[in-house]
Amino acid sequence: MNETRQLAEWVTAHRPESIPEEIAHEAKRALLNYLAAAFSGCRHEAVDIAVKTVLPFSGPAVSNLLGRNEKCDPLHATFINGISSHVDDFDDTIPKNYIHPSSPVASALFAYASANPISGRDFLHAFVLGFEVTSRVGNVVYPWHYETGWHITATAGVFGAAAAIGKVRGLSTEKMVWALGLAATQSAGVRETFGSMAKAMHPGRAGQNGYFAALLAENGFTSGEHSIEGSRGFAFVQSANRDLSKLLNQLGERYELPDNTYKPFPTGIVIQPAIEACIQIHRENHPDPALIKAVHLEVAPIVFELCMKKDLKVGLEGKFSIYHAVAIGLVRGRASLDEFTDAAIADTALMRIRGLTIPHSNPEIADDEVMVEVTMNDGTRIKKHVEHAVGNIARPMTDAQLEEKFRDLANRVIVPARTEEIIRKCWAFEQLADCRELVDLTLPV
Amino acid sequence: MNETRQLAEWVTAHRPESIPEEIAHEAKRALLNYLAAAFSGCRHEAVDIAVKTVLPFSGPAVSNLLGRNEKCDPLHATFINGISSHVDDFDDTIPKNYIHPSSPVASALFAYASANPISGRDFLHAFVLGFEVTSRVGNVVYPWHYETGWHITATAGVFGAAAAIGKVRGLSTEKMVWALGLAATQSAGVRETFGSMAKAMHPGRAGQNGYFAALLAENGFTSGEHSIEGSRGFAFVQSANRDLSKLLNQLGERYELPDNTYKPFPTGIVIQPAIEACIQIHRENHPDPALIKAVHLEVAPIVFELCMKKDLKVGLEGKFSIYHAVAIGLVRGRASLDEFTDAAIADTALMRIRGLTIPHSNPEIADDEVMVEVTMNDGTRIKKHVEHAVGNIARPMTDAQLEEKFRDLANRVIVPARTEEIIRKCWAFEQLADCRELVDLTLPV
Repeated sequence: MNETRQLAEWVTAHRPESIPEEIAHEAKRALLNYLAAAFSGCRHEAVDIAVKTVLPFSGPAVSNLLGRNEKCDPLHATFINGISSHVDDFDDTIPKNYIHPSSPVASALFAYASANPISGRDFLHAFVLGFEVTSRVGNVVYPWHYETGWHITATAGVFGAAAAIGKVRGLSTEKMVWALGLAATQSAGVRETFGSMAKAMHPGRAGQNGYFAALLAENGFTSGEHSIEGSRGFAFVQSANRDLSKLLNQLGERYELPDNTYKPFPTGIVIQPAIEACIQIHRENHPDPALIKAVHLEVAPIVFELCMKKDLKVGLEGKFSIYHAVAIGLVRGRASLDEFTDAAIADTALMRIRGLTIPHSNPEIADDEVMVEVTMNDGTRIKKHVEHAVGNIARPMTDAQLEEKFRDLANRVIVPARTEEIIRKCWAFEQLADCRELVDLTLPV
Repeated sequence: MNETRQLAEWVTAHRPESIPEEIAHEAKRALLNYLAAAFSGCRHEAVDIAVKTVLPFSGPAVSNLLGRNEKCDPLHATFINGISSHVDDFDDTIPKNYIHPSSPVASALFAYASANPISGRDFLHAFVLGFEVTSRVGNVVYPWHYETGWHITATAGVFGAAAAIGKVRGLSTEKMVWALGLAATQSAGVRETFGSMAKAMHPGRAGQNGYFAALLAENGFTSGEHSIEGSRGFAFVQSANRDLSKLLNQLGERYELPDNTYKPFPTGIVIQPAIEACIQIHRENHPDPALIKAVHLEVAPIVFELCMKKDLKVGLEGKFSIYHAVAIGLVRGRASLDEFTDAAIADTALMRIRGLTIPHSNPEIADDEVMVEVTMNDGTRIKKHVEHAVGNIARPMTDAQLEEKFRDLANRVIVPARTEEIIRKCWAFEQLADCRELVDLTLPV
């Protein structure tokens, strides 16, 4: 009954040289993908509004915002970085607990690194630990917590951000316990907001609140000792059931980073198999969208839980619509940012396909799998089975694919020479003398 | 299924002249008591630490902190005001849902009023509405939500702060819906932290987050439409059961303010009957504490839920200990701030009485009731029955008692002439041309 303290002890005692080589490499892949997602989202209207809102309340403007020209204090910068990196749903996902772990943790660290000298080695180390804490806290309460309606990226991510910033600040174990407790008591974010800007706010607020928790604890602000395992703590209050053994089991022997995945498309992960299948049909069979009569597809039950939005009004809703996924794949043969604008939602050709798409929940279909059957007006049928969608754990994006994703998104904001420089620095993260050089490269030019 | 929107519509359409006279008077009592609590707590170590932590991140320092010399931006000022007004557990309580409603709502409004011109009439109006929203949101989920371990003051208070600041900012109904949604998705705070500084952080963070939600919504940051009643919204995600009819039932006809109470002692409300009974025994029977053999008391079951801390280490824990309540009443005959210091916890005379106190949970005892039986070494027994503790709904503190409480606490921070000036201004709140004059009177002199 002192799991919180054991976790805190592990984080404070952990040394960078203990990180296995393959874990460090996966952390770099996560950070490159994180920056790609931040470049993708940094000009989104939600970010513009958030920046406009926080600037009049910002402390000394010592932190750059990733991909933007404004500066603000590190806590608000964390918030903005979190929105940028999540609003397009291009960030990473751990399929076993549906957490997007990098957004809250890396948003806090990049904001911190922009205002304070920190080596790449220490940054990478804190990131690995924050990632680990986020995912393990999530494992304790998944699936019950998520099924109830919590946005687990935020509710677990606040712990990871607190651990990461607490590690960077060199907190004692006692203060790390408080930081985790102050994180627990700020853990928030509900799925009712999905399809609105509020969803993107979650990892931003989680990162900011975790960062703040670490600072409060550093200055001596106390919290409970059992914030995770206590009868009125996170795992009991915010989940109908729990497995506390998952918090500490094989801690330091088995890391969570290898369970991470990266998305080729900017949507909720569970509709990516359908997108991929429909793009393949578009490319291989060239069906005329105007002559499609019906689309039936067998999907995993999780799709019915998360992505059944049908009567769409705004672009953000399209990211959680199995109907829209099918439509863009079949009609446009792609799923870029342009397919999730308000204009795309109003495209009558897409609207027509959404209207004739019928998903069927099938418990024998895996989360990264789909069976699609397109019926044409003349009775012709086109079938496609995607067994493992690209970007899922069984078919991960390669380093080269991640670089391509990064180039595509970064080059919208910065010049290609800087894009390549960031890629190089990411793969050699431990060699950065001061991570500020990396943050500065994200400024629009 | 559009309760959130109906609530938003009511708040945006409500006019100050609709507030009944007795509701306005109760609002003034709540505000006077709020300021008393803020004076009580404003020099607490938790506030010192919080101020030290936020100042380096503060935006333009346009808001005074109640009872302190520092200034900071209004969002951080809300946070600090919230800690000051709650850390001594001297703030108000609604016994039917155990919410301390004024701390999150008034903390936001006083921080706002310190930075922006606002009349007393508009301030009082927004306070009544914020109070109403807080308590009604709480009613929907009480008792299930609270029993699970949520600190309902924070989880419901964030809605009230959003409504109050949203009203002051003149939000449209659509934007008020978003403000409530952005509040819902920040609703947080667990009871595992009770007995630590983190508890006092809750209303501060709730007020700050509600304030921020209103600003984001004002600038067009969207949220869900059904943040309270939706299947992934507050009332479903954060409560095992709910009665949504309580949100809107008799809205505008029956107000929540008459259900509010004010505490004579700085502790959790449920141990106040025991304190009062033991003080009476001390005054009437003068038992020598060294000769007390045992203390048995029959208490309401809620005491066993909330206040069974026995192995105390710090002053804050004493506020939630039925054992400490009995000890200070019998040994010292009073329950002032001095009885909840770390030194008081270590007082061996108090420790001895804590050790021989035996509470019994009795479902026939009401929440504001207690039966105490003191057994002396010579076998003598002293019995005391308090049917309704002072400060509870059946025996409320009078206006004069509230003024006395305010004087006692304010005079520790400001000169008596200012204390009296604040009392006068509170009773004539609607006549304040600019509430800044009230905030400025709280500066230490």
